Amino acid sequence: MNYQPNPEDIRFLQQQVLQAGASLRALPAFAEVDDALQTQLLEETGRFVGEVIAPLNRSGDETGAHWDNGEVRMPPGFKEAYQAFVDAGWPALSASPEDGGQGLPAALDAVLYEWLSAANHGFTMAPGLLHGAYECIRHHGDEALRSRYLAPIASGQWLATMCLTESHAGSDLGLVRTRAVPQTDGSQRVSGEKIFISGGEHDLTENIVHLVLARQPDAPPGPKGLSLVLVPKWLPDGTRNAVRCERIEEKMGLHASPTCVMRFDEATGWLVGEAGRGLAAMFVMMNSARLHVALQGIGLLDAAWQKADAYARERRQMRAPVRPASRGEQDTADLIAEHPAVRRILDTQRAWVDGARLLAYRTAVQLDVARHATDARQREAAERWCSFVTPVLKAACTHQAFHGASECLQVFGGHGYVREWGIEQVLRDARVTMIYEGTNEIQAIDLLVRKVLPDAGAGFAACLLELRDELDASRENEADAQRRMAQLRYLGTSIALAAKSDPRLPYEVADDYLRVAMLTLMAWAWARIERAAPTESGRWAAPAAAFRRWLLPEFDMRLGLVKRACEGVSPAR
Amino acid sequence: MNYQPNPEDIRFLQQQVLQAGASLRALPAFAEVDDALQTQLLEETGRFVGEVIAPLNRSGDETGAHWDNGEVRMPPGFKEAYQAFVDAGWPALSASPEDGGQGLPAALDAVLYEWLSAANHGFTMAPGLLHGAYECIRHHGDEALRSRYLAPIASGQWLATMCLTESHAGSDLGLVRTRAVPQTDGSQRVSGEKIFISGGEHDLTENIVHLVLARQPDAPPGPKGLSLVLVPKWLPDGTRNAVRCERIEEKMGLHASPTCVMRFDEATGWLVGEAGRGLAAMFVMMNSARLHVALQGIGLLDAAWQKADAYARERRQMRAPVRPASRGEQDTADLIAEHPAVRRILDTQRAWVDGARLLAYRTAVQLDVARHATDARQREAAERWCSFVTPVLKAACTHQAFHGASECLQVFGGHGYVREWGIEQVLRDARVTMIYEGTNEIQAIDLLVRKVLPDAGAGFAACLLELRDELDASRENEADAQRRMAQLRYLGTSIALAAKSDPRLPYEVADDYLRVAMLTLMAWAWARIERAAPTESGRWAAPAAAFRRWLLPEFDMRLGLVKRACEGVSPAR
Repeated sequence: MNYQPNPEDIRFLQQQVLQAGASLRALPAFAEVDDALQTQLLEETGRFVGEVIAPLNRSGDETGAHWDNGEVRMPPGFKEAYQAFVDAGWPALSASPEDGGQGLPAALDAVLYEWLSAANHGFTMAPGLLHGAYECIRHHGDEALRSRYLAPIASGQWLATMCLTESHAGSDLGLVRTRAVPQTDGSQRVSGEKIFISGGEHDLTENIVHLVLARQPDAPPGPKGLSLVLVPKWLPDGTRNAVRCERIEEKMGLHASPTCVMRFDEATGWLVGEAGRGLAAMFVMMNSARLHVALQGIGLLDAAWQKADAYARERRQMRAPVRPASRGEQDTADLIAEHPAVRRILDTQRAWVDGARLLAYRTAVQLDVARHATDARQREAAERWCSFVTPVLKAACTHQAFHGASECLQVFGGHGYVREWGIEQVLRDARVTMIYEGTNEIQAIDLLVRKVLPDAGAGFAACLLELRDELDASRENEADAQRRMAQLRYLGTSIALAAKSDPRLPYEVADDYLRVAMLTLMAWAWARIERAAPTESGRWAAPAAAFRRWLLPEFDMRLGLVKRACEGVSPAR
Repeated sequence: MNYQPNPEDIRFLQQQVLQAGASLRALPAFAEVDDALQTQLLEETGRFVGEVIAPLNRSGDETGAHWDNGEVRMPPGFKEAYQAFVDAGWPALSASPEDGGQGLPAALDAVLYEWLSAANHGFTMAPGLLHGAYECIRHHGDEALRSRYLAPIASGQWLATMCLTESHAGSDLGLVRTRAVPQTDGSQRVSGEKIFISGGEHDLTENIVHLVLARQPDAPPGPKGLSLVLVPKWLPDGTRNAVRCERIEEKMGLHASPTCVMRFDEATGWLVGEAGRGLAAMFVMMNSARLHVALQGIGLLDAAWQKADAYARERRQMRAPVRPASRGEQDTADLIAEHPAVRRILDTQRAWVDGARLLAYRTAVQLDVARHATDARQREAAERWCSFVTPVLKAACTHQAFHGASECLQVFGGHGYVREWGIEQVLRDARVTMIYEGTNEIQAIDLLVRKVLPDAGAGFAACLLELRDELDASRENEADAQRRMAQLRYLGTSIALAAKSDPRLPYEVADDYLRVAMLTLMAWAWARIERAAPTESGRWAAPAAAFRRWLLPEFDMRLGLVKRACEGVSPAR
């Protein structure tokens, strides 16, 4: 079965629970974005994704992208689907009107990309990188680059890549060796080899714009010596630039997206931002790019859930311990959805999708606020939220995409391990999201070591305070979420103290800390959902119960584990 | 890199920690099996697996088994490797001398199959099923079947399959529809379609012996109506039987092992055991087959660990928070094995492999005791151990194979997601072990609902008592393991009580119960290893510490979760 977007779920979360409309309309840029427009956009997005993109998922995996002498042919139907995507204006949804964009909130773009990823992760990789390049050039490119590249990238006429990794430089970009030699005409000559370049070459668009991390000859070693250089496949004068796709990787999944080895051989490019400030230029888009990957995780998990749910409501095996009263004695087997172990898997994954969605949409709204609020304090608070919550969501949502898809695969038994039902593709595709855009280990260290510890937890505490104030302590689940927020704050303090004796400790427990943070955020999310949800319906009640019964216990385990690790430190270890 | 067996680790666990030799030599069948013979066999086994089988793993995955008009061609080199395997007598290692076997303990066979699976899971599937068929025919076949089939199966000259699953009958074999019609000459005519038949067709051996679960015309519906029928590919008179491989599945992994759809079209066969007692005939080999799958899990996890460990001791990225004193300031990047998050992954997976190995080897010894002890009480205790511990190991070891391999993949960053390093193959191959030979959900229900609850936990308590008596309460870690055994016993009682109000509850928490049981058994295993290990070496100290710091906390989480679920039951739910 193909993924089927469900606009009603999203509308409930964004409008009823989050009341995102009010937050967005308070921003002058989105004063006209009312709930009716949002609802209409959700319907249109869902239709397009379900009808045009989702049907290409299976064949994209089986045929894959194909390399031939430097050229890459995308799977059948991708070129046409991409053209339809561009023609309908989807790439420009959140781009600025002055660049030809529609100027709509990131909060709506978030849903588009979540659904695209759920429907066809491989396809989504192509337009997925366009936004980061757009933001980079918009904020750091000079007038000449902006006027030449912003509009065609915003519209999706040209696609873009981020060329960062080299074979010896992955998590540690400070080791990058690609060289950029300044020329007298102000351009750069770029030479080196980059690996893991998604969409480095393809036949979807005429031109491809590479943003390349490189080092000028006199630059110092390490991250401070890096510059960002824009290197187009086709130069403005119509000549082919000296950049070539050497090969594409054979991967575990994501076969529809070519992962390219790109060779730059004295290619012509231009600095984006100042020399030596390449990493800073890229960081402008880091939060939105990481949120984008978190949304991929949510989408993939929802896709896995849809498949497992449909299968469980159709497959019969054995009698359930408690049978529906209407079931006759002659029926020897019940639906596997009626078996408690399967029910638990389905409700638990539903709890992850729904809770994580609320958090991701809130973060998308905060991205909008950070960009568009007129009040500086409001922008600052929104940036703080994005800074702390984005790594949590990136790591937790992608972790769950893979592990939850594996649970959903288990619902199929042996049928899950064969291609036929498509669930094993979700698992293979999802695995990469735990790695790219900063591995999940790097996200955990980013959160704890780079963000929480340096100000002794004050910044994160401020984010949690905002959440706490939204809750009503007279309701049991909301008071419970508040208590967990307090425990999370103290945990940061304990780690900061213990780290003085053992500098390794925060790196060892960063992942546990991130999980405690995610479960705290999820407790807020489910408390909010439960308050808004109609009590008579099982749609939200079953995952809410699953969250408390089966997921929240991890909170205490991780909390205790970190506390014991803090108590156990000795400088001698 | 190819998998490299490490006989020294096994020797330490089997001889120093478990003192398996003494238990085995107490059995008349193995009076001559001394430590020197065991050590020599381990060396030979390791050499054969490392030199002949391991090098075919990658090409087996990439080329895969190939179906062509009913025939299946195995990947290049497999036929020759299998012949070498047969010529060296490996299939017959644990078969009875009267059938041409070497009559060696299952405890040694366990190591062979663990290493084979680690080195080449796809290859191992072929001989892996031979033992089950051998035991089935040996215990339930009549004289004619035994004399015709036992010797060629024991020697590996012919291979065998278990034909159980049908497209609508997976976990619920009671739904099987394949028919066996008795003939006047005492044979059966078998008709139907079986799916997921590993090694249903191949070019490794001339004949293939299928054991088929089928229903006679007058048999009742459900599991009690099933009979087991032996259907050879080639009949004794040299004619080709009416059994045909319709196609092979496209799977997530395990490409070297053909998973066949088998069509029986009035094929000739003979009953193995009595009509209607087919499931019982199969159950004779269930514990050894499930232990075999647990060993696959252990082997695959060790293979993943070896790859990640080697990579982490060669790849340099960023500075570690604490650097070796000898490292110069000019070195900008440290080994990733020196980074705490990577160290934690490696030590934790090592803790799983070592602890699970000890438990699996102990269980293999108990299989030997159950078969060969002269004292009936001893046999009974050994059977009890196998009955309770086997489902725990099957589920926990295969779960960890997949999830631990994913952790090991993460050590490689983006390099883990591409084929080159082979780690993604381990992940894909390992996934199926959570499904076949009874899904892990079925194992959990088998343990709790079918075995622990019916006698109010008395049988399992007897197993734990044996373990408890091996421990010395004056040592902290051993006393800790004893406390956990007591908690596990009480947990069974709590569930039994709560189940009276809510019959769904045991099915919902069976997986948590199984995890608590596994962590209790692991606590015993690590307490035993720590007592025997040389204190000056980090080889056993690092995983021992990782077990206590990072793995044991799950015990309390699961325990608490189940207890709360028990307290929360209400008949009205």
